Amino acid sequence: MAVGTELLLGQIVDSNSAWMGQRLAQAGIDSHYQTKVGDNLARIVSALRLALDRSDAVLVCGGLGPTQDDITREAIAEVMGAKLVPDEAVAGRIRSMFAQRGRTMSENNLRQAEVPEGARVIPQTRGTAPGLICPVGDKVIYAMPGVPYEMMDMMDRAVVPDLQSRSGEKAVIRSRTLRTWGLAESAVAELVAPRLELLDRPDEKATLSAPRPTIAFLASGIEGIKVRVTAKAADEETADAAIAAEEAELRRLLGDRVFGVDDESMEHAVGAALIERDLTLAVAESLTGGLVASRLVNVPGAGNWFKGGVVAYDSEVKFNVLGVTRGPVVTLDCAKEMAEGVRRLTGSDIGISTTGVAGPDPQEEVAPGTAFIGLALPGQPADALELHLPGDRDRVRQFCTISLMDALRRRLLEA
Amino acid sequence: MAVGTELLLGQIVDSNSAWMGQRLAQAGIDSHYQTKVGDNLARIVSALRLALDRSDAVLVCGGLGPTQDDITREAIAEVMGAKLVPDEAVAGRIRSMFAQRGRTMSENNLRQAEVPEGARVIPQTRGTAPGLICPVGDKVIYAMPGVPYEMMDMMDRAVVPDLQSRSGEKAVIRSRTLRTWGLAESAVAELVAPRLELLDRPDEKATLSAPRPTIAFLASGIEGIKVRVTAKAADEETADAAIAAEEAELRRLLGDRVFGVDDESMEHAVGAALIERDLTLAVAESLTGGLVASRLVNVPGAGNWFKGGVVAYDSEVKFNVLGVTRGPVVTLDCAKEMAEGVRRLTGSDIGISTTGVAGPDPQEEVAPGTAFIGLALPGQPADALELHLPGDRDRVRQFCTISLMDALRRRLLEA
Repeated sequence: MAVGTELLLGQIVDSNSAWMGQRLAQAGIDSHYQTKVGDNLARIVSALRLALDRSDAVLVCGGLGPTQDDITREAIAEVMGAKLVPDEAVAGRIRSMFAQRGRTMSENNLRQAEVPEGARVIPQTRGTAPGLICPVGDKVIYAMPGVPYEMMDMMDRAVVPDLQSRSGEKAVIRSRTLRTWGLAESAVAELVAPRLELLDRPDEKATLSAPRPTIAFLASGIEGIKVRVTAKAADEETADAAIAAEEAELRRLLGDRVFGVDDESMEHAVGAALIERDLTLAVAESLTGGLVASRLVNVPGAGNWFKGGVVAYDSEVKFNVLGVTRGPVVTLDCAKEMAEGVRRLTGSDIGISTTGVAGPDPQEEVAPGTAFIGLALPGQPADALELHLPGDRDRVRQFCTISLMDALRRRLLEA
Repeated sequence: MAVGTELLLGQIVDSNSAWMGQRLAQAGIDSHYQTKVGDNLARIVSALRLALDRSDAVLVCGGLGPTQDDITREAIAEVMGAKLVPDEAVAGRIRSMFAQRGRTMSENNLRQAEVPEGARVIPQTRGTAPGLICPVGDKVIYAMPGVPYEMMDMMDRAVVPDLQSRSGEKAVIRSRTLRTWGLAESAVAELVAPRLELLDRPDEKATLSAPRPTIAFLASGIEGIKVRVTAKAADEETADAAIAAEEAELRRLLGDRVFGVDDESMEHAVGAALIERDLTLAVAESLTGGLVASRLVNVPGAGNWFKGGVVAYDSEVKFNVLGVTRGPVVTLDCAKEMAEGVRRLTGSDIGISTTGVAGPDPQEEVAPGTAFIGLALPGQPADALELHLPGDRDRVRQFCTISLMDALRRRLLEA
């Protein structure tokens, strides 16, 4: 549960809950619901009661500060049926933190030293508000400050260990994401269907020592379709082995559509393929206007294989700088000449290029969303592909950028 | 309600709900709870019933895709007590989207054409899954895809208007955001302090016919500091007039630090200044690797003033293509020569440039975060500035890009 009206108003994105969800998954603890609620006592109390009703433990984040709208403590005390009492040790720490920083302490800071009777304090090490471990019958509420830096410390230092010791659960949950490009979500699902059917079979029961991974699909637009494999097992080694085995099966079905794993982007895949083959690259961009280059330089060490390029937005730049033949510029031939021109100009091994119509208006009677990409590989004349891309200006450019990088990656794998 | 196990596991941060919360606030609609739930039919159904119990309308996001784990449609049908029936118009649109892109459509895509009886379809314009408006007694569930780009379109086009017509709420909340660059949040707040004091005076009561705007500051990192003016009034005209009057006061205090309003980015401001002066621009980029160019081409009509440029990532490209003198390349002189070189090469009126060290390692004994930007204005030799920028590779590049555009914008205003 994340507490704060600013979260409901969208003035802050609640990234704390996602981080806490990751930590719970790593600790093998299932988490079924996450809720955001504003700074309103009745609604916080009712959300806490509901959460305790459907879960064994509730993590609450936010509303522990010194101001009038910080009322999580009051809400928890009400749910516990307990009084708030000042904790002298906490009050002392707050006073000394202000003294150390040479600041005068306003009295409302001592609100943070109030603790529901029966609750245990998680000492603050990074801020002024302590955390709280609050038993409610045989269940428990953990309260942490909303400042991410303070919350993360308490979560790892106190909350996750306490949860694990209560649950007696020894399981861990691990996952890996395979990233694909070039197929619709439905087509990926169809290729992977044999695995889904096998994993869904109810006749063999999965156990923590013989876990059965689950598979999920994530459509992430310009980043392609992701296939996530998750396994819950007795320990990390068993989970990792189950995931590795499943990954091998999925790669067999998906082939070179898989360009990376977890945080690996398409530009990382391109960089790795170039390093392996000891080749350098340059880019001539019209449609994408520098986007391909700006993504390639994101790869650490790009200087070893990326020479640079030309943004030939104006036709005269295509003719005068890249040596493209005067004439129409939204064509396969122009894409080829651009790729060869930038390869020659920079002395790189490979030249790639983009030209096309981002929209909203047609150009040279070519429809918006039409793109031509050129690839000049080592010692070969260039060839080019025609693409039809959906969306507005920005999406057409983004799709063209990743499509071009993927085309190069696949050519390099074939070669 | 956001649906998706990946949200609970923290593999994706749910930024959709925050965005929707903003839009609801702007429309004057209170939002008290936000919930995340995994891809589990029983839990989605129970969360929907609870949400309908405590609210008049429920917005659901995610779980409308074509795969087996997309079960929001089934859950809503169960809550409505309705059957899912195929909608031929939706199915036709899905088929034609695949045909247009030249892809074969697998049959599971037609799952997206199933609609609970009694629900109304929000036609899809950006993806394959339609949205749904689902009456439940005198309440309503709105379902939208989880892809932000698709959700945002449906929210603005169909959901907010439908909500407003149901609520009969007559007050409107309007806001305008002034965007500044070059000042810390505290400095902006100090400049604006006279207005804050005046607006906070409790002696005159604001009313819907004589609204008093509120001012908020948003620090948005690489986008600068935003100053948001909000007014709640009986009608749009009254709200807009109050905001316009306040904007004039704020601009008097902030001067040319204000580069745009609402969605106007720095590149829009640069484009407007160039068009007004009938000047053309080219960019030579080392440090930023194409990022400046890729932002400039985002402006519709950029072809009227943007020629293109050179991504001179490798030093040889600086020397051979831009004619920079051989020697150190992380210097003020290199930035000047790059700006003049790209102006000459492309025949533009103005050339601008970046060179520097993105990190993590120093280069030519220059520390990471050091950037040199060059500006060659019409008929003048170039000059250059040295910047020291915070953050990792990506942030250094982003800061350098907007700093360079702002420097050009201010030079043009002075000239």
